[in-house]
Amino acid sequence: MRLSRYFLPTLKEAPSDAQIVSHQLMLRAGLIRQEAAGIYAWLPLGLRVLKKIEQIVREEQVRAGAVELLMPTLQLADLWRESGRYDAYGPEMLRITDRHERELLYGPTNEEMITDIFRAYVKSYKQLPLNLFHIQWKFRDERRPRFGVMRGREFLMKDAYSFDLDEAGARRAYNRMFVAYLNTFARMGLKAVPMRADTGPIGGDLSHEFIVLADTGESQVFCDRKLVEMPAPGADVDWNDLQSIVDERTSLYAATEEMHDASAFEAQTAEADRLTARGIEVGHIFYFGTKYSAPMKAKVAGPDGADTEVHMGSYGVGVSRLLGAIIEASHDASGIIWPDAVAPFDVQLISLRPDAPDVAAACEQALSRLEAAGKAVLYDDTDERPGGKFATADLIGTPWQLTIGPKGLADGVVELKRRATGEKLSLSLDEAVARLVG
Amino acid sequence: MRLSRYFLPTLKEAPSDAQIVSHQLMLRAGLIRQEAAGIYAWLPLGLRVLKKIEQIVREEQVRAGAVELLMPTLQLADLWRESGRYDAYGPEMLRITDRHERELLYGPTNEEMITDIFRAYVKSYKQLPLNLFHIQWKFRDERRPRFGVMRGREFLMKDAYSFDLDEAGARRAYNRMFVAYLNTFARMGLKAVPMRADTGPIGGDLSHEFIVLADTGESQVFCDRKLVEMPAPGADVDWNDLQSIVDERTSLYAATEEMHDASAFEAQTAEADRLTARGIEVGHIFYFGTKYSAPMKAKVAGPDGADTEVHMGSYGVGVSRLLGAIIEASHDASGIIWPDAVAPFDVQLISLRPDAPDVAAACEQALSRLEAAGKAVLYDDTDERPGGKFATADLIGTPWQLTIGPKGLADGVVELKRRATGEKLSLSLDEAVARLVG
Repeated sequence: MRLSRYFLPTLKEAPSDAQIVSHQLMLRAGLIRQEAAGIYAWLPLGLRVLKKIEQIVREEQVRAGAVELLMPTLQLADLWRESGRYDAYGPEMLRITDRHERELLYGPTNEEMITDIFRAYVKSYKQLPLNLFHIQWKFRDERRPRFGVMRGREFLMKDAYSFDLDEAGARRAYNRMFVAYLNTFARMGLKAVPMRADTGPIGGDLSHEFIVLADTGESQVFCDRKLVEMPAPGADVDWNDLQSIVDERTSLYAATEEMHDASAFEAQTAEADRLTARGIEVGHIFYFGTKYSAPMKAKVAGPDGADTEVHMGSYGVGVSRLLGAIIEASHDASGIIWPDAVAPFDVQLISLRPDAPDVAAACEQALSRLEAAGKAVLYDDTDERPGGKFATADLIGTPWQLTIGPKGLADGVVELKRRATGEKLSLSLDEAVARLVG
Repeated sequence: MRLSRYFLPTLKEAPSDAQIVSHQLMLRAGLIRQEAAGIYAWLPLGLRVLKKIEQIVREEQVRAGAVELLMPTLQLADLWRESGRYDAYGPEMLRITDRHERELLYGPTNEEMITDIFRAYVKSYKQLPLNLFHIQWKFRDERRPRFGVMRGREFLMKDAYSFDLDEAGARRAYNRMFVAYLNTFARMGLKAVPMRADTGPIGGDLSHEFIVLADTGESQVFCDRKLVEMPAPGADVDWNDLQSIVDERTSLYAATEEMHDASAFEAQTAEADRLTARGIEVGHIFYFGTKYSAPMKAKVAGPDGADTEVHMGSYGVGVSRLLGAIIEASHDASGIIWPDAVAPFDVQLISLRPDAPDVAAACEQALSRLEAAGKAVLYDDTDERPGGKFATADLIGTPWQLTIGPKGLADGVVELKRRATGEKLSLSLDEAVARLVG
């Protein structure tokens, strides 16, 4: 992509109402634009990151056996009356009346709708286990939206819903999502720690939040340091028996402020391992048994022929919020430092003299070779001065910067810089391309 | 994907309120489920098709130079007051009040918001031409939603918006979208004919609809048969000068009912070429000059330094509606016949005896070889009887059916069937796989 033909509106300074660094950087780097309180447009660069994060979430859901569908944003109020949540949900639910005076709402979550879909089609235990997920825009009418996409009103969420014949099956489904989440966040370069959590308005008796540690996190968390250092299980696990992987983690102390028990923390954790930090919630998983299947009569015929209410769980990832969390965890004074897996472009190709034919030719050659190898390249072919180009590249956080100028070319070299470390190498163009492609 | 672990709820019969064949087949084949009038959930099979169509639309937009972003579904009423459309739009606009009594609406289209984004960042003619598009859910509160996704209320639309310094530039942008649309629909196996159209509430003085011909089309259309037979221009065109390609088509008579002029039709078209047919609108492009840039003050500094209101166009594709249009154009009495490019799966692998070890082994081998070659395979490993499996495969319209059973295996053959033609071949497994992969 040539920057001269792209739409990358960066800002010198963030608006003063952006309080946290991720919000400031998302505005300055041209990732988002506020359209209303807590409602954002995703500018081209921001959309590229959003799609990468979405795709990682999707792949790990599918790997764990979940099947993707897509439910609409608007729902009938009557469906929520069946579960009793229409009145219980409160002012965060955006209630809407259509031209025929039918009551709708902009879905804040989808337990009712997915239970309705399930009961319409699934009649036998033979069709279980089933885990259905979607990645869709949700709306929660926060009283005080702030922190950019971290606490927006219209936000992108992945929500999965599992259906099993009994509690043992539901716990296996829960474990699959538990492990999928560890792998999902690790692929994005995040350390996300599972913490025993309050079940809140979704209800149920088993729940974990996945918390990214960051100094600017919204809440205080307490956990065993060993949990932070533990690597993700990876894809090569026995998906039918994950209990030991889950137990290994849940046996270590980890709790958010609401669930924290100081004496238990001290009893279970050696002093050197006791970590108190700030955290950002990026995922939340729940097992809630028959909380929705009972009132909504979602039953299947069991092996004995008798109808049984299914046991359910739900599993959320804040897809749009993850951009904020990743930036909070990975930035410096110059801007964003995207982990490779979610970067909007792999390489920023910086021409120091777009009007010099030899520089232009070398840039074109680098561009076509990198793109042929599947690399996403943002080619800064504008007539901005070099200092401005470097500042933009640092700000938007492209993992690699490949700079080509007339002086270097005369000496047969280009410059390759790694954004995360600042390390710079003088290499031949061939060597630089080989290093980026390899 | 193993059907036993998938979620494909097919129906024996379509609900009686589904009046047209695409709606009936989308319900029967388990593509969609109605959640409210004109509001649908996309079941896993339907979502796969939707994503394929969306991706073709995206690729052809990018090829034509458009840049993708994503605007939110909800918009501020005040933005629409600037253009005067808040009051003008009528009851099709879903108006919403949030908890702080702010007036929002669920976007039916995005001219105002994109103009607001443009004016916030673009100040110079040097940043033009610019074409920004997004693919997002829209809402139009149809008085009488019907025909499934063909006239839904919540629907997925691709809308692009071009910005140019003057009318000549805007017409070049218009031509790029005109050609992109011809290529887009051709890639989906559709014959979409551009027809001079009324500009309607969006306004402007140049507009074409792209109409798919189908007996069940919603409106009467009149056109020169040569236009239907003309192939799409393809990607290998001079994107900077498309006027001759556009002229070649617009010089032939083609009009929807509202724009039809019988005497002009007869004067311009030889009798043998006069085609009267039914059609389905799948795209609509507009040039509307400064209709939005003038009231919203979207100006850039021109080469002479003076501020100029930009000339704009907008370009829509009904992404979700296209599923209905494709099915209307491509089905038979047994079900859907997906064109290869949009099919949810490439191959349906049908095991006639999942419990027979040799059949299971051959199926597993076929599955892994096809998937390794990048083919999407739906493997019917269920214990349904063969007749039911064939009926399902025909109904959901997978382009190829590869059937493996004990008798054939004993003779060293499997059966390969092409859904579109019904042609069946007895081949060795190697030959069948080679034919599908080749």
